[in-house]
Amino acid sequence: MQKYDAFADFKEITPSERIDITTHGGRAKCIQRLIRLDLPVPKTLALSFPTVQAIAEGHLPDTEGMMASFGDVPLVSVRPSSQDPDWGGPGAILNIGMNDARHAYMVDTIGQDAANAIYMRFIQAYSVHVARLDPEMFAEDNLSSAEALRDVLRAYEDETDEEFPQDPAQQLGEVLRSMARAWGGTTARLLRQARGAPADAGLGLIVQEMVLGVGGIESGAGVIQFVNKTTGAPQITGRYKRQSQGRDALLANGDAMYLTRDPRGPSLQEQCPSQFQMLQEFGKRCRSFLREEMQIEFTIEAGVLSILDAVRLPRSARAGVRIAVDLAQDSVISKSEALMRVEPRSLSELLHPQVDPDAPRDCLVRGIAASPGAARGRVVFSSLAAQTSAAQGEACILVRRETTPEDIRGMHAASAVLTERGGMTSHAAVIARGLGVPCVVGASDMVFSTKKKTIQLSDGRKLREGDVVTLDGTTGQLLAGEPPMIEAGLDDAFQTLLGWADELRDIKVRANADTPADARSAHRFLADGIGLCRTEHMFFEGDRLTVMREMIFADAPVDRQEALDRLLPMQIADFTALFEIMAGTPVCIRLFDPPLHEFLPNDRAGMRELAEALDLPLSDVERRVKSLSEVNPMLGMRGVRLGVALPEIYDMQARAIFKATIEASKNGDPVVPEIMIPLVSAKREVELVKTRIDAIAAAVRSKLGADFDYKLGVMVETPRAALRAGDIADHAAFLSFGTNDLTQMTYGLSRDDAGRFMNQYVQQKVFAEDPFHILDTEGVGELLMIGSERGKLANPDITLSICGEHGGNPESIAFCRRAGFHYVSCSPFRVPVARLSAAQFVLMDQGMFFGSPY
Amino acid sequence: MQKYDAFADFKEITPSERIDITTHGGRAKCIQRLIRLDLPVPKTLALSFPTVQAIAEGHLPDTEGMMASFGDVPLVSVRPSSQDPDWGGPGAILNIGMNDARHAYMVDTIGQDAANAIYMRFIQAYSVHVARLDPEMFAEDNLSSAEALRDVLRAYEDETDEEFPQDPAQQLGEVLRSMARAWGGTTARLLRQARGAPADAGLGLIVQEMVLGVGGIESGAGVIQFVNKTTGAPQITGRYKRQSQGRDALLANGDAMYLTRDPRGPSLQEQCPSQFQMLQEFGKRCRSFLREEMQIEFTIEAGVLSILDAVRLPRSARAGVRIAVDLAQDSVISKSEALMRVEPRSLSELLHPQVDPDAPRDCLVRGIAASPGAARGRVVFSSLAAQTSAAQGEACILVRRETTPEDIRGMHAASAVLTERGGMTSHAAVIARGLGVPCVVGASDMVFSTKKKTIQLSDGRKLREGDVVTLDGTTGQLLAGEPPMIEAGLDDAFQTLLGWADELRDIKVRANADTPADARSAHRFLADGIGLCRTEHMFFEGDRLTVMREMIFADAPVDRQEALDRLLPMQIADFTALFEIMAGTPVCIRLFDPPLHEFLPNDRAGMRELAEALDLPLSDVERRVKSLSEVNPMLGMRGVRLGVALPEIYDMQARAIFKATIEASKNGDPVVPEIMIPLVSAKREVELVKTRIDAIAAAVRSKLGADFDYKLGVMVETPRAALRAGDIADHAAFLSFGTNDLTQMTYGLSRDDAGRFMNQYVQQKVFAEDPFHILDTEGVGELLMIGSERGKLANPDITLSICGEHGGNPESIAFCRRAGFHYVSCSPFRVPVARLSAAQFVLMDQGMFFGSPY
Repeated sequence: MQKYDAFADFKEITPSERIDITTHGGRAKCIQRLIRLDLPVPKTLALSFPTVQAIAEGHLPDTEGMMASFGDVPLVSVRPSSQDPDWGGPGAILNIGMNDARHAYMVDTIGQDAANAIYMRFIQAYSVHVARLDPEMFAEDNLSSAEALRDVLRAYEDETDEEFPQDPAQQLGEVLRSMARAWGGTTARLLRQARGAPADAGLGLIVQEMVLGVGGIESGAGVIQFVNKTTGAPQITGRYKRQSQGRDALLANGDAMYLTRDPRGPSLQEQCPSQFQMLQEFGKRCRSFLREEMQIEFTIEAGVLSILDAVRLPRSARAGVRIAVDLAQDSVISKSEALMRVEPRSLSELLHPQVDPDAPRDCLVRGIAASPGAARGRVVFSSLAAQTSAAQGEACILVRRETTPEDIRGMHAASAVLTERGGMTSHAAVIARGLGVPCVVGASDMVFSTKKKTIQLSDGRKLREGDVVTLDGTTGQLLAGEPPMIEAGLDDAFQTLLGWADELRDIKVRANADTPADARSAHRFLADGIGLCRTEHMFFEGDRLTVMREMIFADAPVDRQEALDRLLPMQIADFTALFEIMAGTPVCIRLFDPPLHEFLPNDRAGMRELAEALDLPLSDVERRVKSLSEVNPMLGMRGVRLGVALPEIYDMQARAIFKATIEASKNGDPVVPEIMIPLVSAKREVELVKTRIDAIAAAVRSKLGADFDYKLGVMVETPRAALRAGDIADHAAFLSFGTNDLTQMTYGLSRDDAGRFMNQYVQQKVFAEDPFHILDTEGVGELLMIGSERGKLANPDITLSICGEHGGNPESIAFCRRAGFHYVSCSPFRVPVARLSAAQFVLMDQGMFFGSPY
Repeated sequence: MQKYDAFADFKEITPSERIDITTHGGRAKCIQRLIRLDLPVPKTLALSFPTVQAIAEGHLPDTEGMMASFGDVPLVSVRPSSQDPDWGGPGAILNIGMNDARHAYMVDTIGQDAANAIYMRFIQAYSVHVARLDPEMFAEDNLSSAEALRDVLRAYEDETDEEFPQDPAQQLGEVLRSMARAWGGTTARLLRQARGAPADAGLGLIVQEMVLGVGGIESGAGVIQFVNKTTGAPQITGRYKRQSQGRDALLANGDAMYLTRDPRGPSLQEQCPSQFQMLQEFGKRCRSFLREEMQIEFTIEAGVLSILDAVRLPRSARAGVRIAVDLAQDSVISKSEALMRVEPRSLSELLHPQVDPDAPRDCLVRGIAASPGAARGRVVFSSLAAQTSAAQGEACILVRRETTPEDIRGMHAASAVLTERGGMTSHAAVIARGLGVPCVVGASDMVFSTKKKTIQLSDGRKLREGDVVTLDGTTGQLLAGEPPMIEAGLDDAFQTLLGWADELRDIKVRANADTPADARSAHRFLADGIGLCRTEHMFFEGDRLTVMREMIFADAPVDRQEALDRLLPMQIADFTALFEIMAGTPVCIRLFDPPLHEFLPNDRAGMRELAEALDLPLSDVERRVKSLSEVNPMLGMRGVRLGVALPEIYDMQARAIFKATIEASKNGDPVVPEIMIPLVSAKREVELVKTRIDAIAAAVRSKLGADFDYKLGVMVETPRAALRAGDIADHAAFLSFGTNDLTQMTYGLSRDDAGRFMNQYVQQKVFAEDPFHILDTEGVGELLMIGSERGKLANPDITLSICGEHGGNPESIAFCRRAGFHYVSCSPFRVPVARLSAAQFVLMDQGMFFGSPY
């Protein structure tokens, strides 16, 4: 009997027996906890990971011994117990031990119908999941029909040429082997690895004595929850179904009871008040001692309540926050534990309205979920139409093939944006996330005709301009009509949790904010300032674009200056507004960055319009547009290169910043603006710009008779700037690593063009992750380390930070804390994620672990 | 008399006196050497750098003492003596000491005319260069006219309100002060710094007793050279002019004598045979003992020969090589010294015909000298016209706004290329250098009309298609007509010198060669193999482009394979030819690199043509072209990214390489091809490609029953590949750093777009040099060091190299030797430069210095 050695380890779960999540799985451990709380749990055996592994490899379990341990002719269930419930596992199999003899006995004791139903369930489950027969042959709704029972038994015999196994020990052995092997299957392995399971994740199994739920008077099964899983507010929910087993109650359509008194039908509270009261008491006991909101599975057999299992209540992100905060406020867990219970990325969901996850969905188009949240509106196909619609107070969804900087006003005006092309890092996606506008990109299964103003759907339907739709940027879907929505969850619990995070975290979180609207979002989400204000977006607004174009077309410096003089008061107003909104927190303004051709029209119609506006021949406009066009705009005449070649632009911006500084300082604390030079690759670039800006500061001080301080720093976006950070730091009060461009240059990969193959690359593990999404710590990260170390060595007082899409990611925050950075800057809607994440890393350093114990 | 202390150091040049180039300048030192050789040099005083500096600062020199040291009433000259003759200096001033009394005396001794001429010369020089009066007022051709002499004396008095100074010591003092001060002037300083002088470069002066050259019977002055300054072949050249001073003979139009017997007129050899014989003997003495070909300045006074000065003979690049080799072969200098005497970059000139530097030039257009050499031909405006012209055996100059890959065939066919746009690193420039075709780019002062087929010149003239012109790629000019040319200088001396270099150098030099024609150039210049064969250029040729386009338009893998199957035999032929031409030296083939859209037409006419060729609707073609277009092609879907996404292309290329290997190995030593993967940024990319290529090698071996070896390596072009070189080296037999792309990505700067501001950047010293021209050792170089160190650590047998435009530069070779690289690869026409340069660095390590001692 050598083979049984492996099973020395199957054991009954008792309060004192050693049961560990890492050897027996979470379900086994949870059942032990329920037992320790004196909950009425039926007798349960636990099989360890190595035991199940041995079974999968063909060793025979001592199923006779197991069955015998349950006493005389028992029925048992087998359920999986993996280390993390998210990693899945084979479905439960109930009623093992049923056979002809037991059936005959039950007909006498609990009646024909109940006995038939129990035997039928077992035959069905065994045939499909253990014998792997065709499920269609065993589909049968009427469980209690004697005829149906005969049919399925005959079907089993026909298919297998064997009688249905009658030996309970043999039945159990086959069930265990089948479940053990299912765990090793390719599909199951890939599924759980996709959820973060390691390659050698083990499966435990539990064998539990059945509580029948059928037969006797007041028998049935149900599930109870104590808080609302969408909001997290205290509320008893769940269902109870008489004469049922397992989770039947949840699948039932209308014939299950409510748990609490309900006008719509009978309830457990009314029908079984004592059991209901016990469940309530059990719930409280679980919450206090298991320190988590649990969902409890219970069965009543002839009036006697048993607790079969409990799992952590599945919940929405919003409920997760509320539950964690409530547990902490009730002193069940500490504030620190509450912070560790919330997945930072889940907070993004709370900042926007969502489509009700329980609502039916008519999905028209699928794409990449590029900016979370949901919005309704009428379909429009141009930025102009979006602005018109917004002006009329009518919500709209802007649909474009792809967006360009000229669409910014339209994107501002729209409630949501859908594009046919592009990936997570396309213009539409980046801008939408910055604006907090729900967005789906790369919806390539629709055929989009701007001319006909229609969208041809893959299922043959057609959408027309004006049709009402709902865009769900969280799931990447465009939905027909107006499904019910749930509102944003910026409630007290949310604010409380982030308040606790702020008390703990040791790295600042600023926001990338280009406009007063962005700055207000940043301030609302309690950002520690603005880390990146991209001034160029200001020039696309209103009539500024025309002035910009005049500036670009100016042939003589005097004409260029004339245009810049008209932009100056607008920029002063922009900056004054930002300083005032940010109320004393630092504001870092990046000087003009993009190539000038971004401000010029790229189609003939646009050029003709421009020629009219500037009173120039069309050919002049075409020539100028052509002469400014670039082969690789990302690597062209932009950033500090423009600042050196046409210094008047930076001069104007510096003047505006300083005048705004004086203006905004009048009504509050003195503002100390931070001025950032983009796209630097050599120290001398910084020197040239610094010399002019210092001179302008002196001139403004002297002219206006007011004093102010400011900081001048460098955006490190080229690999060379990182390598030469030691030199550059001589003239820089701060270095802010622009990880978007730095990633593009380090990989030699344009994010606008990477969409075509990035998915394939990530799937084939060429890149472990999309480096535009998750900071590449090995390559780009090394440049960050080199740059920050050299910068600090040359200038120990230097302020270090990252800005860009990566800024708010937990991975980036971990990296930046290790590297000794002073702050991260991210889009306003990522600020809460970053605040929580930063606090969690402090707690992890103190030895705490992420998540719930269940 | 404190002030005279500074002049303790003026001293007579004698054989034993200490005269040093670094304190008294090159001319003083050279005169000492002539004296040591017993040449008849008039008495000469030397003033040191500090002395001259003191004079410039206002100290009074002891000019009385100086004049007195020459004896009774002497005349003297003052000439500059800077450390390096290239650094320039003020012009010589002769006849100091002339005054009314001396004039009267001379009238009696050497005659009225000679006395007048000597006084006149001095008054002119003094007035213009010392008193700084208007040169126009002192212009007078008839030096011997008594009236003219009175006029200039009166003019001096009118302008200065003073009499012309009569005291010789005062005259000398003023001359010395004037020359000392001129050295400190801004123009002189900028000019010499542009030629490499340090900011504190000093000036020495020499004061030499005049030998008159006028007056007595057989008096005159001349200059003699002993080799031809264009070819370097032994040949006495120069001029002698009776009754002249200084270098008058060289400026004379026709009335100077030849030196050797000449049918065109009288010669020194005939007229003064003994002096001529002495000069010949002096020339030999100089060559033997000064170890250089000198140009000697001599004067004959009343039949007595004096040697005033000698300088290193100015020479063409070709003559420089011949002179160095001849000196070494005559055992005057060692081979090593000969190698150190030739500036490597000057060799480029020798590889191409040149416009005769002495010929008159009618310059039509100026631009950037992008590829050296000169060529004549008829102007054509399209690649098609260039091909037609070449087919008819008629040389042509291709003029384009800018070139694209589609122009390659035209560039091949043309004798030279001129473009309106672009810089040193534009497509036209890079390809032309690779092809060895003379090229001028960025000729923005012409207005170019493709429609009218004319070029409007800035001076109002017009060029038409068919006009004959000469393009000088060495100076960056387009010249009218057909000025005389001198042929390429690949003579024995050139071959001998490079042979000596090859014996010494310790780094290999390979060539970048894409076609059999390139490979033949590489082989002719004795490259150590091919370091970079860019296979994509092969696909632009002939009917291959159509097949390429069919491959790109293939919807199904089977269609793509069908097109690739047609390309396979062409590629086999390409590679077989390369292997055979390179005769056993290694050939490194880079797998397909460019984005596919480079192969598609970008205008409507081209698309219509393509639609016809592929029998597709135009709209399909347009859509495909549009869908493949990229925002930043440099950072897009190319290189290994294509190789991973469409592996069939690399499969075909690998198959072709292996079949060619077997084919070429039949008739010689086994070929070991090197296969290089472009644009790598992660190790996994290498793994994926390696797996497939290894499999193809196995399949070819088994199918053809032949064995072969090959090496697989990586082109390191992205900063990330350099940072991750340790990982990548696990799967790479070699790493070749592609410094073109690496520079683009490290700076975040596209070389196609940098032209617009690079000049300004280099002028403002933002970048010390154009990093696409001279390797940026601080930024890009650090990545090279990081990459090579990590690569070696992971794989000590790895072969390291650089390829790309920088490869042939001496600066890059110095860097690569220090970094322990095994070879550099550069365009075939840079191979000789690199071979010589590599040898020079070995010699420098042994303590030798570059250049001639003069």
